[in-house]
Amino acid sequence: MKLPPAAVLLGTHSAMQSRSSVSIDYNVAPPNLSTLPNGSLFDTWRPRAHVLPPTGQVGDPCMHYTDPSTGLFHVGYLHNSEGISGATTDDLATYQDLNPEGRQSIVPGGINDPIAVFDGSVIPAGINSLPTLLYTSVSFLPIHWSIPYTRGSETQSLAVSSDGGRNFTKLDQGPVIPGPPFAYNVTGFRDPYVFQNPTLDSLLPSPNNTWYTVISGGLHGKGPAQFLYRQYDPDFQYWEYLGQWWHEPTNSTWGNGTWAGRWGFNFETGNVFSLDDQGYNPDGQIFTTLGTEGSGQPIVPQLTSIHDMLWVSGTVANNSSITFTPNMAGFLDWGFSSYAASGKILPATSQPSTKSGAPDRFISYVWLSGDLFEQAKGFPTDQQNWTGTLLLPRELRVLTIPNVVDNALARESEASWRVVRSSAGTVDLQTLGISIARETKSALLSGTSATEPSRTLNTTSLIPFQHSPTSKFFVLSAQLTFPASARNSSLQGGFQILSSELESTTIYYQFSNESIIVDRSNTSAAAKTTSGIDSSPESGRLRLFDVRDGEKEVVETLDLTLVVDNSVLEVYANGRFALSTWVRSWYANSTGISFFQNGVGEVKFENVTVSEGLYDAWPDRA
Amino acid sequence: MKLPPAAVLLGTHSAMQSRSSVSIDYNVAPPNLSTLPNGSLFDTWRPRAHVLPPTGQVGDPCMHYTDPSTGLFHVGYLHNSEGISGATTDDLATYQDLNPEGRQSIVPGGINDPIAVFDGSVIPAGINSLPTLLYTSVSFLPIHWSIPYTRGSETQSLAVSSDGGRNFTKLDQGPVIPGPPFAYNVTGFRDPYVFQNPTLDSLLPSPNNTWYTVISGGLHGKGPAQFLYRQYDPDFQYWEYLGQWWHEPTNSTWGNGTWAGRWGFNFETGNVFSLDDQGYNPDGQIFTTLGTEGSGQPIVPQLTSIHDMLWVSGTVANNSSITFTPNMAGFLDWGFSSYAASGKILPATSQPSTKSGAPDRFISYVWLSGDLFEQAKGFPTDQQNWTGTLLLPRELRVLTIPNVVDNALARESEASWRVVRSSAGTVDLQTLGISIARETKSALLSGTSATEPSRTLNTTSLIPFQHSPTSKFFVLSAQLTFPASARNSSLQGGFQILSSELESTTIYYQFSNESIIVDRSNTSAAAKTTSGIDSSPESGRLRLFDVRDGEKEVVETLDLTLVVDNSVLEVYANGRFALSTWVRSWYANSTGISFFQNGVGEVKFENVTVSEGLYDAWPDRA
Repeated sequence: MKLPPAAVLLGTHSAMQSRSSVSIDYNVAPPNLSTLPNGSLFDTWRPRAHVLPPTGQVGDPCMHYTDPSTGLFHVGYLHNSEGISGATTDDLATYQDLNPEGRQSIVPGGINDPIAVFDGSVIPAGINSLPTLLYTSVSFLPIHWSIPYTRGSETQSLAVSSDGGRNFTKLDQGPVIPGPPFAYNVTGFRDPYVFQNPTLDSLLPSPNNTWYTVISGGLHGKGPAQFLYRQYDPDFQYWEYLGQWWHEPTNSTWGNGTWAGRWGFNFETGNVFSLDDQGYNPDGQIFTTLGTEGSGQPIVPQLTSIHDMLWVSGTVANNSSITFTPNMAGFLDWGFSSYAASGKILPATSQPSTKSGAPDRFISYVWLSGDLFEQAKGFPTDQQNWTGTLLLPRELRVLTIPNVVDNALARESEASWRVVRSSAGTVDLQTLGISIARETKSALLSGTSATEPSRTLNTTSLIPFQHSPTSKFFVLSAQLTFPASARNSSLQGGFQILSSELESTTIYYQFSNESIIVDRSNTSAAAKTTSGIDSSPESGRLRLFDVRDGEKEVVETLDLTLVVDNSVLEVYANGRFALSTWVRSWYANSTGISFFQNGVGEVKFENVTVSEGLYDAWPDRA
Repeated sequence: MKLPPAAVLLGTHSAMQSRSSVSIDYNVAPPNLSTLPNGSLFDTWRPRAHVLPPTGQVGDPCMHYTDPSTGLFHVGYLHNSEGISGATTDDLATYQDLNPEGRQSIVPGGINDPIAVFDGSVIPAGINSLPTLLYTSVSFLPIHWSIPYTRGSETQSLAVSSDGGRNFTKLDQGPVIPGPPFAYNVTGFRDPYVFQNPTLDSLLPSPNNTWYTVISGGLHGKGPAQFLYRQYDPDFQYWEYLGQWWHEPTNSTWGNGTWAGRWGFNFETGNVFSLDDQGYNPDGQIFTTLGTEGSGQPIVPQLTSIHDMLWVSGTVANNSSITFTPNMAGFLDWGFSSYAASGKILPATSQPSTKSGAPDRFISYVWLSGDLFEQAKGFPTDQQNWTGTLLLPRELRVLTIPNVVDNALARESEASWRVVRSSAGTVDLQTLGISIARETKSALLSGTSATEPSRTLNTTSLIPFQHSPTSKFFVLSAQLTFPASARNSSLQGGFQILSSELESTTIYYQFSNESIIVDRSNTSAAAKTTSGIDSSPESGRLRLFDVRDGEKEVVETLDLTLVVDNSVLEVYANGRFALSTWVRSWYANSTGISFFQNGVGEVKFENVTVSEGLYDAWPDRA
């Protein structure tokens, strides 16, 4: 394909015009997409109900907070590697950009951050009772766990907003945390996450409502770590180092690594918060979410080939120093491109919660890299004119799985669950509950819905839905029941979606390795013409326990929710599993859904509902 | 006076042409000098034998070292507030600029020092065995003890020279000392001075030949201090904080303040070194020199109205932390404009010492501010095209004053001397010996000399020399003896110099307050036409002890050396006193010298010699 004349390219490159006017026919095979005019693929795969900037690249979510003066929830994200942009929401469904064109609220270029601004977190009523950002101010690059660390690369600085979060003004002074602890040879030292915690207050002890911050990173030759600090003065000028409250040996694992990947070489984006079964509870169980930077062997300098998006629950003790000891760990999202989650307390008094009646919650946004963390060479970035998205806001809570048969499946140690009650042959398990924020989910389901008749498949089948959606914007909910004989069999059961004669994506549960698989080998015709469009499978591990159902022992039902927002697929299961990925179908008619069964064994499909349309999360955008 | 046309001004402003070609008649009264063309006063008061840059402002001396690969001694100084320039010497008399036009070897503008580069000191064989500068990198101004300190204003960074000191290249990383100790509300945190000291090595203990650094400053509400650090790793990346090894209450004094001024509000430019009676000795007595920033009342924000240039001797102990406790303190130079001395070990193996046969020495250069620390409003700075100078290099040593009569004069406590031996009615006193470096002094005395006949004056007299110099470049040496009856009398004895019918400067010892006075009230006709030319008196305190001379008790002889290098006057006395100031005579014929006596009492003048001409310290300069 011949490139259009430069004038066209210039016209489509304007900041005011995110889309090219070039018309693309999605009924014929795609060209090599990187030959198309800039902006011509803007709408092709763009999600509708997700948080992402008007144009450009979205990076780590961060800088979320509820503004105490408005009750609005602020959602922020690194934007174009040039600072942090943000939006507000009063309903956790629709968002308003804080600045025109999603302009950043803080950009690099100051004395503390001549090179870059990395993730920060907000004390909602900080300096002068204003929203106060503690962020990583960057003076040197590159920074990577695989190379020597340049001293002074990452410091932590303050900025304050006095205009409702549109701009965060840096304090005219040096960093408040001017470097890692003395003589620490760090692999990273960034992403300060501020929080309050009465358990820490009493263990240390500290004055009530002291602010803490964890800084994520690690030590060369030792391993990844979270560095814990506490507020020292009312002006947040000084943060007292309390130690590596949590560290792990280099590239070690939780248990055998089955349930929570690897700790990797460096921690990033650590959040610390406390939960009960309703949501956020200051006195609840302490959790952290974090990204771990890993790599296969041999290590390639400056390449993090594995990004695990994990959660960890643990106990906190003060034995001469404060320590966090994991007791469960799992994936917050199993997707290869899912990373850098950032969450925040959303109080019951916030606008969204006031409207929905929700209690205090902890809401987390995961980032979905749009280009395999810049490794998707050849991806038509300029043609699309946006890269990546945040995933749907998720409510985190302590989830109890009751009436589980007390067997080896339940009793596995160092897993993503733990036994919290045991009696009469059953146990209650506890894990992290992960679900789409209630307001978001309501909005997603507000479109036209159709329910498929229940059905049972015994042999390898691909049965089209009676009512497949007509678009690529829908939610599919279903419950799948498997017989006990399915364990350790080759049985697979699920759905094929975004399907047409030429494309399809299959999502299924597979007993052989207790995994939910997203088979993307046939997802996109564009993958055949254009490099950088990943068609590798995604998978995440979910154990369906044996549960007591009256007198019977049955395999726990698989409770699936698939959100398809054009190219963004989020798979939720059983209130405790999430896997998100890109499904970049090309053809306009790739909207079909089929029941999928493969292997020996019965799969019963029930409560199969498709809600179509989703909603526009950005009603004010052009 | 009418200003010359702009073209002339432009011509004289060029960096290549320091002098205006305008001819000035020094035989008639001066105009208001600030009306003259730029550069027209370049030669008027310029010294010949002193260290100063080719043009522009000289600030604190610093960054001295002997290059182990050449044996050359490097002398550095802040230059034009735009970094540090330097020169080398192989004889402590003549100097070669390291860079053309005295261009700086390091300038501000890097990531660590966007605003300024302050004083630094050099590890001669540091990183990669190259000269390694530890200097104060400045990110925010203003900085002053009288105002709140902006966090992060002063950090300490490294730079290395691989081209013989012409350029010091900053390490491409952050500061090695990224801020004051945790939560210290400092008044200042600058001027790191690196040194080695076996006493500290054994007391702490530290590995042999560990490098230390003192950083000068203080704490708001507490007082001035020296912060002590030690080298932590072979690459000088980390410096371990050892505490405020010395601190004093805000604006307190040594004793009653008679002998060593005030500790002020903030310490600057602290040097630490050890001496014996020959010069530098690593196992010798520990001394520090420092500048103290003081003020009268009321304090004017951002104004340091008093700058004391002090030395202190003390004992070092390690009682849970390492401490320095003064046992003597005095002025390294009593001049109002004398400040910010910087010294360095000059080893016997250096080129100058090899030539002269001198042992290991500690050589200190004091700064003489040219404009009363920027308070001399109206001074014809542009007309002169240079501002300030370094004073002559001084050898410091432990000086013993033997056979002093054991009386109250000798026994005064908290003075600038101390009793180190006592027997049979006499004591030996110890103090800091201050003398012009031997090579420098030899060079100064290398011109034509004339000796005046000895004489005794009993009544108020002003007796012209038989051989007054014909220029304003000379050294006057003399010994003055006073009777015991002079004590507490109004007797004054000394010399009038730079005198003519219309101008004169009188330098005399005055018993009433045991002081050497420099009366500048009639020094300069220019002071009458031009503001900013200070004519206030200078004074410094020197006690002439009673000493045993055979069976007699006599007043110690006053052993005076006056160096007049055009407008720069340095007064040395008795190997332990120095006072330097500006004497800006105007008339060409103001070169006369007279004996001066005033009051009741006999003054005997002996060994009165004038060496005229001095020498050109900068033979390679245009």
